[in-house]
Amino acid sequence: MTLPLNNAQRYVPEAINGDFRGKHIVTVEQFAPDDMDSLFKSAARMRTRVQRGDRGLVDLCLGKVMATLFFEASTRTDMSFQAAMLRLGGEVISTSGGVQFSSVYKGENLADTVRAVGCYADVVVLRHPEVRSSYEAAYYLDRLNERLGTHPVVVSGGDGVGEHPTQALLDLFTIADIKGSLDNLKITLVGDLLYGRTVHSLAKLIALHGAVNTTLAFVSPEMLKMPPAVMSFLKSRDIAVYETQQLDEVIGDSDVIYWTRIQEERFPLRADYEAIADQFIVTPATMARASDKAILMHPLPRKHEMGTQADHDVLDADQRSVYFQQMANGMYMRMALLAKVLGAER
Amino acid sequence: MTLPLNNAQRYVPEAINGDFRGKHIVTVEQFAPDDMDSLFKSAARMRTRVQRGDRGLVDLCLGKVMATLFFEASTRTDMSFQAAMLRLGGEVISTSGGVQFSSVYKGENLADTVRAVGCYADVVVLRHPEVRSSYEAAYYLDRLNERLGTHPVVVSGGDGVGEHPTQALLDLFTIADIKGSLDNLKITLVGDLLYGRTVHSLAKLIALHGAVNTTLAFVSPEMLKMPPAVMSFLKSRDIAVYETQQLDEVIGDSDVIYWTRIQEERFPLRADYEAIADQFIVTPATMARASDKAILMHPLPRKHEMGTQADHDVLDADQRSVYFQQMANGMYMRMALLAKVLGAER
Amino acid sequence: MTLPLNNAQRYVPEAINGDFRGKHIVTVEQFAPDDMDSLFKSAARMRTRVQRGDRGLVDLCLGKVMATLFFEASTRTDMSFQAAMLRLGGEVISTSGGVQFSSVYKGENLADTVRAVGCYADVVVLRHPEVRSSYEAAYYLDRLNERLGTHPVVVSGGDGVGEHPTQALLDLFTIADIKGSLDNLKITLVGDLLYGRTVHSLAKLIALHGAVNTTLAFVSPEMLKMPPAVMSFLKSRDIAVYETQQLDEVIGDSDVIYWTRIQEERFPLRADYEAIADQFIVTPATMARASDKAILMHPLPRKHEMGTQADHDVLDADQRSVYFQQMANGMYMRMALLAKVLGAER
Repeated sequence: MTLPLNNAQRYVPEAINGDFRGKHIVTVEQFAPDDMDSLFKSAARMRTRVQRGDRGLVDLCLGKVMATLFFEASTRTDMSFQAAMLRLGGEVISTSGGVQFSSVYKGENLADTVRAVGCYADVVVLRHPEVRSSYEAAYYLDRLNERLGTHPVVVSGGDGVGEHPTQALLDLFTIADIKGSLDNLKITLVGDLLYGRTVHSLAKLIALHGAVNTTLAFVSPEMLKMPPAVMSFLKSRDIAVYETQQLDEVIGDSDVIYWTRIQEERFPLRADYEAIADQFIVTPATMARASDKAILMHPLPRKHEMGTQADHDVLDADQRSVYFQQMANGMYMRMALLAKVLGAER
Repeated sequence: MTLPLNNAQRYVPEAINGDFRGKHIVTVEQFAPDDMDSLFKSAARMRTRVQRGDRGLVDLCLGKVMATLFFEASTRTDMSFQAAMLRLGGEVISTSGGVQFSSVYKGENLADTVRAVGCYADVVVLRHPEVRSSYEAAYYLDRLNERLGTHPVVVSGGDGVGEHPTQALLDLFTIADIKGSLDNLKITLVGDLLYGRTVHSLAKLIALHGAVNTTLAFVSPEMLKMPPAVMSFLKSRDIAVYETQQLDEVIGDSDVIYWTRIQEERFPLRADYEAIADQFIVTPATMARASDKAILMHPLPRKHEMGTQADHDVLDADQRSVYFQQMANGMYMRMALLAKVLGAER
Repeated sequence: MTLPLNNAQRYVPEAINGDFRGKHIVTVEQFAPDDMDSLFKSAARMRTRVQRGDRGLVDLCLGKVMATLFFEASTRTDMSFQAAMLRLGGEVISTSGGVQFSSVYKGENLADTVRAVGCYADVVVLRHPEVRSSYEAAYYLDRLNERLGTHPVVVSGGDGVGEHPTQALLDLFTIADIKGSLDNLKITLVGDLLYGRTVHSLAKLIALHGAVNTTLAFVSPEMLKMPPAVMSFLKSRDIAVYETQQLDEVIGDSDVIYWTRIQEERFPLRADYEAIADQFIVTPATMARASDKAILMHPLPRKHEMGTQADHDVLDADQRSVYFQQMANGMYMRMALLAKVLGAER
């Protein structure tokens, strides 16, 4: 669903500019390279502290409350945000039985729902099918602030085909963490690049970070190419992009292979889908053509785009497959982000 | 749904009488004026402490567990109770996936369900569509107590068209808090006064509190008048009540305007609904006829009874609209109540 | 549902052998008598500490996170696990809105879902309709461990008609706790012994514990007899078992009467069900034929198999009915088990 913009949706988020405290997080465009690096350092520290069983973590957000508002299912985003907040000593509220069992589904609009939870929580994690819904939430939380003098913030957990900033942040953190640097990389994004908000946010974030001699390759069927808005954003940032429909042109050279699913429903004709489907399934045979130093990433969940369960088992045992590390990093990145927006950490 | 009373539903709750500890909270009739005032003072303290970020709050209910049992959706009641308990350092359990995904919906009766959660929790918050269901819950928790020697209490989160005591308490707290006193007020309740449990509980609580020179006005369509049982309760308490179908008779003089929704489904004939609908929608034009010192309250959520989204935006910016403060007070009042029934505070 | 075994489902769980730390809990067969006794002692201590309001409990699992994955409804198992973890100072995450609102229901397989939550949590409680699903979960958590170096464990909350180890443990704890010893008892299991995973696990656990002069009686309709696999397990353990269709043959002599429901749907012909139904309903009249020292147990929830609400009220007041103690023990047993697998207690 995409509605015409109203005042609320025209909301312009504040740049982080070195200070996360009290800021709504709705787009990767709020982040400068230093903001990302500071977040990545914090995420790595969070990981070390969790793995050591450091009980001091629970002092960071003691007494703070996070509300989750998930209008769409998202096991990973939802549960990793919950675990992140709880591991920091904060607390989590949500509608018992989910939003589908709440007044929200009985016709209350987002503006009112987000202000309701904003009365109870310090941070609201919003997942919503409408593009720019998190902007609208930020706008109305600011209106609430004017009346109550409280400062709840919204953190986007993904809005429609728009953005998914925390996914992009955890993805880029994973690359930086495993590769040691973001310079001199060939990063290849594969699959549905038209509707995939994850790849939109990631491509933009890579361009925003800037890196010496790093280039992007986009592999997708013609009708699922990266949208013009993202392409012009990348051009304005001077990052080299190569587009193709043939994975084999780039796979041997790629340092990072980021795989996403193509949904059959995107194709009006089944024959059109079948003509390309095989090229967009990653299997052990695909990875045999990739470099030894390549890493295979995937936002998960996965279905047919990674073959059968037997293919999964082989791919999972391949040291180049880092999607479980990537998934685990989701929690550490969100710990870092929550600690920063709640003022528990600079 | 209303079933004939059985032994359990004939349960008579104990008066607070200055001591909340271990008492079930099922009706406003348990509260004497001093009990209300003590609760209001505590709610105001809770608000100050939360706004200051006082971490000492989490000592109040450390180690205590609250269970939520919501057989009806209620985002605000549900999430404000959760946030209240968690901000006091307590914990919250509920059925993963909501009661609609639990054995409750597979035919277990309330008596058994409430005793199950009473085995695990110190306090059970119950929202249920049947009138007096919270009385039945209290009765069976007392039976459980006889067997196990434990003391879980039930707190009503609203039962059918019956009562909603914590909503009434937060409403009256909001009036006292903003007006400074409950004396010398003209309080006007508007809308569906027949089926609205919120207005039943509020009108009774106002009468129970007693206040010098405070009067009530009830504005509703003829067929949605305040029910006789509530009217005779008010008469027995000697509070002056004026009933009318015309808001304009009283709006200019009202100190408090409490708005509620009228549901079209209540009217057998659509024409009957249409004849009165416009008079029961509050808009900026309505508030233009109200006094400068008036406050506009609403239990939320709101739909057509507050006009369009554009009307909402104008009303929300009107300093006389206090429904967001009212909503926020819901959490503070519930913190105070939980702290008192769990013995964390006198 | 029962699928053919794959590698994952062929997973062989480790015996406890005096050390619970980091072990998956999927079957009663992991427990030796000493392991049970150590767990029972711990459960009794947990009960004492909770009843005393001992705040030191929250130090045991501070900073640890438990995820609940309930693919089937189970109010008691679900909420008692939650309360157990929270009372130990740990935290709980679950999919907002339940698994039916998650990617799980959109086709993700168990292997991937359990690894997702294993990235965020230290312990995963799994309830799933497929037999041996918890074995599969354990297998894939071990694979995740190989990649990430983290050690999340799975605890079964019941799998299909297979096993329900924590229910069996709380049941046996309740018997030992009330009777003072497991020796010299006549334990009678009544109802659907074919499909009831609770009675399968309990019978096996009793045999595994071993006890001097303790015998089992199984009372069920011919077509719902204890399955051969369980019977041969019992035989191999040398415990005396008597099978009958007539409760009256054994009720007067029984020290423990463990009642379970017979579902009408199990019978192809309604007449077959009606022929036996009355004998498998426990009422005050049934208990009049039982010994004074007998105890009546039931895993709950209960429906028609304990008669009417009026029958419930009479049975509930009978001092021999211990199913509420049994239910409460569920939380204490799960506290003990969680504390042990998480290494908070030896």
